Amino acid sequence: MNCSSWVATGADHILRPRLTEPVAIIGATGALGFGLAVRWARAGVPVTIGSRSQERATEAVARARGAVPEGEFDGFENARAAGAAEVVVLSVPFRSQSETLTNLKGALRPGQLVVDTTVPLAAAVSGRATRTLGVWQGSAAQQAQEMVPEGVRVVSALHTVSARTLSDLGHDLDEDVLVCGDDRDDKRRVVGLIDLIDGLRGVDCGRLEMSRLAEGLTPLLISINVRHKTQAGIKITGLP
Amino acid sequence: MNCSSWVATGADHILRPRLTEPVAIIGATGALGFGLAVRWARAGVPVTIGSRSQERATEAVARARGAVPEGEFDGFENARAAGAAEVVVLSVPFRSQSETLTNLKGALRPGQLVVDTTVPLAAAVSGRATRTLGVWQGSAAQQAQEMVPEGVRVVSALHTVSARTLSDLGHDLDEDVLVCGDDRDDKRRVVGLIDLIDGLRGVDCGRLEMSRLAEGLTPLLISINVRHKTQAGIKITGLP
Repeated sequence: MNCSSWVATGADHILRPRLTEPVAIIGATGALGFGLAVRWARAGVPVTIGSRSQERATEAVARARGAVPEGEFDGFENARAAGAAEVVVLSVPFRSQSETLTNLKGALRPGQLVVDTTVPLAAAVSGRATRTLGVWQGSAAQQAQEMVPEGVRVVSALHTVSARTLSDLGHDLDEDVLVCGDDRDDKRRVVGLIDLIDGLRGVDCGRLEMSRLAEGLTPLLISINVRHKTQAGIKITGLP
Repeated sequence: MNCSSWVATGADHILRPRLTEPVAIIGATGALGFGLAVRWARAGVPVTIGSRSQERATEAVARARGAVPEGEFDGFENARAAGAAEVVVLSVPFRSQSETLTNLKGALRPGQLVVDTTVPLAAAVSGRATRTLGVWQGSAAQQAQEMVPEGVRVVSALHTVSARTLSDLGHDLDEDVLVCGDDRDDKRRVVGLIDLIDGLRGVDCGRLEMSRLAEGLTPLLISINVRHKTQAGIKITGLP
């Protein structure tokens, strides 16, 4: 994740260091995915925007370039986008998670890392956004792990960051992101990417199965948002 | 919760304002209950320490007075302690929650407020402390609500505060406490009591059913503690 190459970017064509590995975001036309795209791009991360259609991906790239003119973006239909980077962020509603992963079966390849951000809100089946559904595998992240091709590893993260504040580049973030996964190096890689975004800190909170509890924070924060008319996030206290 | 009376307290018998209503703590010989007892006593809250035996309650009172000489303590067997205050904090392991509430059936009376701190860690049945058990009613707090006598209301809170740092009065706290309950005034009352403890802030996070998610924070923090060798807590960002 350190300077591995120099790339010409932006309108001015000035060579600047490529600070990080690129990231592909599946569902980057949604609020969370788009917020991640522009925040990462502003931090120097090359971002591939994935959408269900090439047309919407192209439109989102234009919108992202408007927000971050110096950003390095491209945009493709999800399956092609998923092939564009080693780290693939899955940012789709729970309702579409399973279908999206089925569609990506041929696109993902061994060695890739999927960062699953899905939260099984009961709103997916017309229930409340302050409740979760029980997922057979334990959590949306574990469902993702079951569905990706052999050799693709899943890390779960980014459940507690408000999509709205994330996409508002004028808003100063100051919160933590819980990261769950079974491989320490994978988590370090994802924490490294999260830490690139100003005001976010990635915190390893254990194995992938802990995602069941981390995913539960989203409806809890939604409930807090309703009561306190805010966009709440979380911080872990007591860390070194 | 404001100055309602003047009481003679402590070794010096100086009259000082009773700032708050008294609190009874069931299971106050455990680390969390004892920590709450000394923190509240230091904030001027009269505390009744409840234990399974009068002998252990008396011993805990002596220990608490050693830690907070100016504190106002008494100590009784749990059922008698439960009658000593309008606010009764239940601080027992999940393994004992059901049994304790059964034993308190004759002691609790309509109008009392039970603050349930129970977390259904799988450790209760020799499982991992980073996992929870599924509770039929949805959460330990909802189980408590089902078990208390008619007219007794349950609020759930204090799942994320480390018992160890709470009982160490030399440790400066700086974290939030999520409060769940179905009655707004009840939650306000509990938030008021929590706010009396230096470094804690109570945050209303919704109805009692949200306790299922709040209780899940304990195993999540335990997992973080293991990885980061700390006593983690949480803070909610974005609150006014």
